[in-house]
Amino acid sequence: MTAATLLLGRIRGVARPAIGTLLPTAEGPRLMLDAGANADCDADMLLQFALMGDVYARCMLDLPQPRIALLANGTEEHKGSALTHEAFAKIAASGLHFIGNREGRDLLLGGYDVMVTDGMSGNIALKSLESAATRIMSMLKRELTASLWRKVGAALVKQGLARIKRMMDYQEYGGAPLFGVRGVSVVCHGSSGERAIFRALDVAAKCLESGLVGELSRSLEAVAGAEA
Amino acid sequence: MTAATLLLGRIRGVARPAIGTLLPTAEGPRLMLDAGANADCDADMLLQFALMGDVYARCMLDLPQPRIALLANGTEEHKGSALTHEAFAKIAASGLHFIGNREGRDLLLGGYDVMVTDGMSGNIALKSLESAATRIMSMLKRELTASLWRKVGAALVKQGLARIKRMMDYQEYGGAPLFGVRGVSVVCHGSSGERAIFRALDVAAKCLESGLVGELSRSLEAVAGAEA
Repeated sequence: MTAATLLLGRIRGVARPAIGTLLPTAEGPRLMLDAGANADCDADMLLQFALMGDVYARCMLDLPQPRIALLANGTEEHKGSALTHEAFAKIAASGLHFIGNREGRDLLLGGYDVMVTDGMSGNIALKSLESAATRIMSMLKRELTASLWRKVGAALVKQGLARIKRMMDYQEYGGAPLFGVRGVSVVCHGSSGERAIFRALDVAAKCLESGLVGELSRSLEAVAGAEA
Repeated sequence: MTAATLLLGRIRGVARPAIGTLLPTAEGPRLMLDAGANADCDADMLLQFALMGDVYARCMLDLPQPRIALLANGTEEHKGSALTHEAFAKIAASGLHFIGNREGRDLLLGGYDVMVTDGMSGNIALKSLESAATRIMSMLKRELTASLWRKVGAALVKQGLARIKRMMDYQEYGGAPLFGVRGVSVVCHGSSGERAIFRALDVAAKCLESGLVGELSRSLEAVAGAEA
């Protein structure tokens, strides 16, 4: 990530690049950012993540008016930390289609298009989702091989289980684009297999084709211009 | 929670009470706190959570020397936010059996006994785990009833699936004790059914029998005394 930032440079107005990640929600893949690039964020950074997420969802997920949500410890407006309260006000005033606070429970259920959060909470959320998926899959494996009859049953439902595994597998979603650099950079998981790398290249190609970086620059500079 | 704090009062030296929650790790139930009482924490509060969690794990989980971990965005010491860096130093100097930073992925895998975090990250982590569990269980339900053969298979593995569901069900773990009040208070989920309430009463009874509150007072006052 540091290499990408140094080599490509940042888009004008971007304080710090952010890592985006696609979550397999019940409504299809949805974007969360920052998923771990910046452990300490301020409200202006969260506003930039919202603006960048909005562009990504329009260009890459073909969602014309993305629903922007803020990750908090409850959905009511008064929920959240000092940081999210300040970010809430800024995003609400940004002209984006802001739907307010959402919580961890919503991450895979859906009802949003872009989930905005600081890199600490985003990283904890993402790895908590992975933790539950890994644990349940390993319990399934143990329970479904615990007796001969269960093995027979498991053979009959095998394709269904494979579909679930594929759905929850981050490798299927490819790498996470790095937001805010002046170029295309896709960050992969440290344990990426060849399928993950293939998908990451796919993501990078779509970033280029959709003109994502140009759109990001225009969106962020428009806001920087309005503030100046 | 406010009612409990007002009625029971706080243990001397406790800045703010915290909500604890038991997570179903591969090594058995383990404690995470704060799970949502305090969205904004300072490092002294995280140290108190560590001290209170240590007492709880000794009294209620029968773990003689609990492994205390700090939730961060990676396991290396340099990972984390300004808050966790400061808390890391304080907990490391506290005399507790501190094992350093752990990440979201470890929450259900285990390798720790008490996971210390601020209420914002803790709440997001807990609800992210629930989000993944709910989503996988609903995918399982759909996939396992998608055809006649799958229904037959599902019937054969039914008991195994029920075991997994029970393992992931917060209702089985009862309520989360409120840490730091001068008395026993167990916080239940808003959607608790009768089994959850029954288990919560069970948790409350064990809190009383084990002399948890007296132990908490002694532990916190010892640290307050050492600092004074």
